Amino acid sequence: MTESLKVALTMGDPAGIGPEIALRACEALAADPIRPVVVGDPDHLVALAAELNLSPPEDMVRCGSVEPALQPGRPRPADGSIALQCIVAAADLAASGDAAALVTAPVSKRIIAAIEPGFKGHTEFLAARAGVRDPLMVFAGIRPAVALLTTHLPLATAVASVRRPVIVAALARLDGGWHRWFGDRPRIGVAGLNPHAGERGLLGCEDDIEVRPAIVEARRAGADVHGPFPADSIFRRRDLDVLLALYHDQGTIMAKRAPTPSVNTTFGLPYPRTSPDHGVAYDIAGKGVADPSAMIAAVRLAAQMARNR
Amino acid sequence: MTESLKVALTMGDPAGIGPEIALRACEALAADPIRPVVVGDPDHLVALAAELNLSPPEDMVRCGSVEPALQPGRPRPADGSIALQCIVAAADLAASGDAAALVTAPVSKRIIAAIEPGFKGHTEFLAARAGVRDPLMVFAGIRPAVALLTTHLPLATAVASVRRPVIVAALARLDGGWHRWFGDRPRIGVAGLNPHAGERGLLGCEDDIEVRPAIVEARRAGADVHGPFPADSIFRRRDLDVLLALYHDQGTIMAKRAPTPSVNTTFGLPYPRTSPDHGVAYDIAGKGVADPSAMIAAVRLAAQMARNR
Repeated sequence: MTESLKVALTMGDPAGIGPEIALRACEALAADPIRPVVVGDPDHLVALAAELNLSPPEDMVRCGSVEPALQPGRPRPADGSIALQCIVAAADLAASGDAAALVTAPVSKRIIAAIEPGFKGHTEFLAARAGVRDPLMVFAGIRPAVALLTTHLPLATAVASVRRPVIVAALARLDGGWHRWFGDRPRIGVAGLNPHAGERGLLGCEDDIEVRPAIVEARRAGADVHGPFPADSIFRRRDLDVLLALYHDQGTIMAKRAPTPSVNTTFGLPYPRTSPDHGVAYDIAGKGVADPSAMIAAVRLAAQMARNR
Repeated sequence: MTESLKVALTMGDPAGIGPEIALRACEALAADPIRPVVVGDPDHLVALAAELNLSPPEDMVRCGSVEPALQPGRPRPADGSIALQCIVAAADLAASGDAAALVTAPVSKRIIAAIEPGFKGHTEFLAARAGVRDPLMVFAGIRPAVALLTTHLPLATAVASVRRPVIVAALARLDGGWHRWFGDRPRIGVAGLNPHAGERGLLGCEDDIEVRPAIVEARRAGADVHGPFPADSIFRRRDLDVLLALYHDQGTIMAKRAPTPSVNTTFGLPYPRTSPDHGVAYDIAGKGVADPSAMIAAVRLAAQMARNR
């Protein structure tokens, strides 16, 4: 029998749907060889489970104390503070090896940034805490998977970051991370920056003077990389395992409009980390109607990555 | 009985799938109250129809002469020249009222640009020929439909074009064009430029200092406009009739990854114009396997727009 893997699971922003989908995922995963440990306020989680007619989670790590005045959908600074504490505690469990993987429930970047200036998202925060430069965000569980060259940058800054050495480094991280966490070497495609991948210089030069040479260099280093291909059709290429998108929305639109849900993963951290590909959904928080399927997929993928380790 | 509408249909790049899907569309539309007039080389079209076991088109306008040495999938300058002549002839039919609408089959921008420097696509070329500044490309037939603020610009230039007056003008054209061609006033959403629509300034300022004021101004002018919304979820909003994407790939990725095919239309021209939302497909040209469904949808939408006129 497969041994149960301990996976640390943050409850996310208490004013969002995080606690609800964490609880629903724990119940749905009862038959899997996975032991989810929910990092959050146990009193809040147990009360919420009762309210939703769910079993309370078997394993919890106490972190934060949700105010009784909590209003679902109306986050306050205290909620951001608790969400951040949970990320820190759960990341430490994964980093120390106490948990085999980390799964994070959604938080509001804006609410956390109000108490932790410069907070730009889980990916950047976890990387900084692990002392890792240049983490790579990868939407897995879809074909092709989608990796992001840059994440939370203004678009003008992201465009200026499309430079040969940045792309070469990301391709190395993508090739190595895929091999480490998914067990084989990927066939990679690179999306073009400009419309129609620049149409051979007619619609911009970066695809020819930055992206193409980077692909050649990555190939020389042994990676199986192709492109650049027009971004508005590359997602149809079933021959690719994963594609590198050159800025946030280029990749997230592809991933979130895929026919099946994707799982957000981070390459570059010393432990496996995933999250569902949706946000806090304040509009339906507290209504008991949140769909945990993306969270369940995130926990399963984290466990699979931990087993491939 | 509905009167048959004459629709001018270019055969597109002879080395691509254009002639094949034009012929297949004519056959498929035989029972519709539409009379397609194929603008191209009749000798080539009749021979190709025989090869594909299709009826020859009933109505043709002679334009260009395809070289006997034509190699499907391997375009030469002469093919670009014919494709361009067909666009000019068909546009003139629509502009003069001899045809009620124009439908264009795919061409290669690069091949045409080699003989017509600066050619950036049908939309820009037809607008210039009609003396229209700022045509608006709209992917219709999906919900929400998708309009593009700018089309064939390098991404860095497109980002710099996200300015309040440009957006206000596009919203006016979108609101007016929708009313003219589809008969009612649309509910419009605007996609954000930066990740998460700038997350209130955390990830870039253009969404707040250019996009929001433009939306306020367009609303004052009577349009039903909302946003900006994060580009990687706005396409899920079924309450919107159409969304304005702020650059080419943002909109085309959404439109081309929609669950159903879209039809490319141009607002701002004095006549209805549509095209299928795919390219020349050189990889399958000449193989007799091209799917005409997007072309059929394009002809039907053009006819519908002409009837709403």
